[in-house]
Amino acid sequence: MERCDVLGACSEEADRLTRPFASAAMRQAHEHVTSWMRQAGMAVSKDNVGNLRGRYEGGADADSTLLVGSHLDSVPDAGRYDGPLGVMVALAAVQRLHDSRSRLPYAIEVVAFADEEGLRYGTTYLGSRALAGAFDVADLERADADGVTMAEAIRAFGGDPTRLADDRWAGGKLLGYIEVHIEQGPVLESLGLPVGVVSAIAGQSRFEITFIGQAGHAGTVPMDRRRDALVAASTVVVGVETLALTDDQMVATVGKLYVEPGAANVIPGRASFTLDVRHPSDANRSKACEAMLALARETAEHRKLTVEVRPVSERASVACSPRMIARLRQAISERAVEIPSGAGHDAVYMSELTDVAMLFVRCKGGVSHNPAESVTESDVAEAIDVLSRSLELLAAER
Amino acid sequence: MERCDVLGACSEEADRLTRPFASAAMRQAHEHVTSWMRQAGMAVSKDNVGNLRGRYEGGADADSTLLVGSHLDSVPDAGRYDGPLGVMVALAAVQRLHDSRSRLPYAIEVVAFADEEGLRYGTTYLGSRALAGAFDVADLERADADGVTMAEAIRAFGGDPTRLADDRWAGGKLLGYIEVHIEQGPVLESLGLPVGVVSAIAGQSRFEITFIGQAGHAGTVPMDRRRDALVAASTVVVGVETLALTDDQMVATVGKLYVEPGAANVIPGRASFTLDVRHPSDANRSKACEAMLALARETAEHRKLTVEVRPVSERASVACSPRMIARLRQAISERAVEIPSGAGHDAVYMSELTDVAMLFVRCKGGVSHNPAESVTESDVAEAIDVLSRSLELLAAER
Repeated sequence: MERCDVLGACSEEADRLTRPFASAAMRQAHEHVTSWMRQAGMAVSKDNVGNLRGRYEGGADADSTLLVGSHLDSVPDAGRYDGPLGVMVALAAVQRLHDSRSRLPYAIEVVAFADEEGLRYGTTYLGSRALAGAFDVADLERADADGVTMAEAIRAFGGDPTRLADDRWAGGKLLGYIEVHIEQGPVLESLGLPVGVVSAIAGQSRFEITFIGQAGHAGTVPMDRRRDALVAASTVVVGVETLALTDDQMVATVGKLYVEPGAANVIPGRASFTLDVRHPSDANRSKACEAMLALARETAEHRKLTVEVRPVSERASVACSPRMIARLRQAISERAVEIPSGAGHDAVYMSELTDVAMLFVRCKGGVSHNPAESVTESDVAEAIDVLSRSLELLAAER
Repeated sequence: MERCDVLGACSEEADRLTRPFASAAMRQAHEHVTSWMRQAGMAVSKDNVGNLRGRYEGGADADSTLLVGSHLDSVPDAGRYDGPLGVMVALAAVQRLHDSRSRLPYAIEVVAFADEEGLRYGTTYLGSRALAGAFDVADLERADADGVTMAEAIRAFGGDPTRLADDRWAGGKLLGYIEVHIEQGPVLESLGLPVGVVSAIAGQSRFEITFIGQAGHAGTVPMDRRRDALVAASTVVVGVETLALTDDQMVATVGKLYVEPGAANVIPGRASFTLDVRHPSDANRSKACEAMLALARETAEHRKLTVEVRPVSERASVACSPRMIARLRQAISERAVEIPSGAGHDAVYMSELTDVAMLFVRCKGGVSHNPAESVTESDVAEAIDVLSRSLELLAAER
């Protein structure tokens, strides 16, 4: 936790934590993490995209590698734990092995990913995409707010943007990928548990929906002659919640809503909103989206409005490995629960490379992406213990 | 209608109609209207606030005055009829008297009001407030977008801002005030009628309502733990419509809604919206407002949110004079209907001075405050006929 405080001071902004991809603040963070990795007996390297990798070799019979990691970049005005905590817990577990001069029958590579939040270029998972061999080179031409392209940023940070394909994992057989991360939700807190095992990373569908009715004078158009776009949108907002409540694994959110013309005395002629639907089961998510879009279409038909539905993005769910889930559950001293992750993580792209598993750490009030992010020392200690025991259990399994 | 076209060309903007209070465009409009008033045998004067008044004297036995009028100012990008049509119909009716050398047992004063829309200073009814003796001199210090105060604008337009009290009606006994205006709604069109008599000008309550819940990650906070401000607001938007539909004289509108933080992947922590409720009966309006605010409070309580209700404005309804309504109904050749006016008009302030009545003219699609405002020649002819016959009926009544 002290190390998270040290990293928390590596920021592009004086009075708050903002650590974007390939920034001076990230370079400073790398200096700290490099020295901690070396203290834990690891060989440190940095790949082209800017992931920092620390390798702790296995014993003489080792024939494979386990990846453990999370990201070092942040959102603007961030907390100290979303990302860095996972890297620090991994370092602590390796430190224990090093301190006890233990070697496992596999190597461990701790990866501190370069970009998960996408703050600087609006593209998430740059680090894990490069390691998974899924980097889109078209992104290299994107420019940040100062007009610096991603290719230039990578070069300035010491990488070669023309050789990103070399970042793809090439170290032989992989045992899997484990990521420790704060929960970013209130479930563990409400269950009174320090940690939980992630069952799956929810798939996600995002839409933009627009109702087009007819604007009119708020005083002169009788209620039964209106084609009010906001009332239609509100019907769907309420209906989306009702549908989502029927399945406790599902979340659905209207986070943005915009009304036009937007005057107190004018009937809304147009209302646009976003819809974000997530579920660990892709089939359930698809069914829910269909029901929600059907509600939008029925509402439009019933109210004689037009509705436009624009699919914005879709991401399939990622199931965590049952084998690795079992090891994590075994390693938990208290009651072991499985909860889905509604948020995306580097594990999403790592699943293209190997089996993945995640351990969530309870965070205060479920708050994240906020300076108020908070974890307790005993919860973090439990996370380190669970990860350490999992490493042993995975070794015993060989 | 040709005259409305001529006035439509008196604009502050080259390619659209925008005619604010005390502007060069208004001065140009006054030149036309002055000459038309004179053609109809009227003595023309302009008061301090900038109302143009044309007086057609009554016969030798005349002991009172009937006011007839509407406003000459416009909203930005206006149509040609909202306001000017009422003045032109009044002029046409007086022209008929003049052409037939008729004098009535009362004088007629046609008033072309200086400001009803409030475009330049954000204060509506400047003209009728001055005539009613209800002008608020504090408004004189308001500045327009160019920093010109209202006092300066009045002086530049030829009035004396220190003598606005002199504008108050001082011409002796009043018979009433009649205003012809486009309906600005779709009721007459749907009834297939050219004109209708206004029963009352609806009272109006306006509120700003804010739900404060808790922002959170759209992926990680389970549905049953959310305190989503937008879902709460949407519940009220839908409920407001449901309540308003129970009374066919009521209209209620949420025209503006603003969500914070306003990102697709963040649960809304705050949702603010306006509520505009109008009803010709003040008691019914009060009851409806109570029910709507109660719904907001119940929704907040039920969902564990906070709600803030800020009353923005309240205006009592204005009943039209039964005596004058009866004369207008008598004067209508086809089926005479009475409809409430949901919009405010100069008649609101004139009611502080004398009995008021209004005649609505059918307008295409109920559209107003828009260049697409449209009336037919035969409907306008009917409005002139009805007004002329009403003048005769009021004379016969003496």
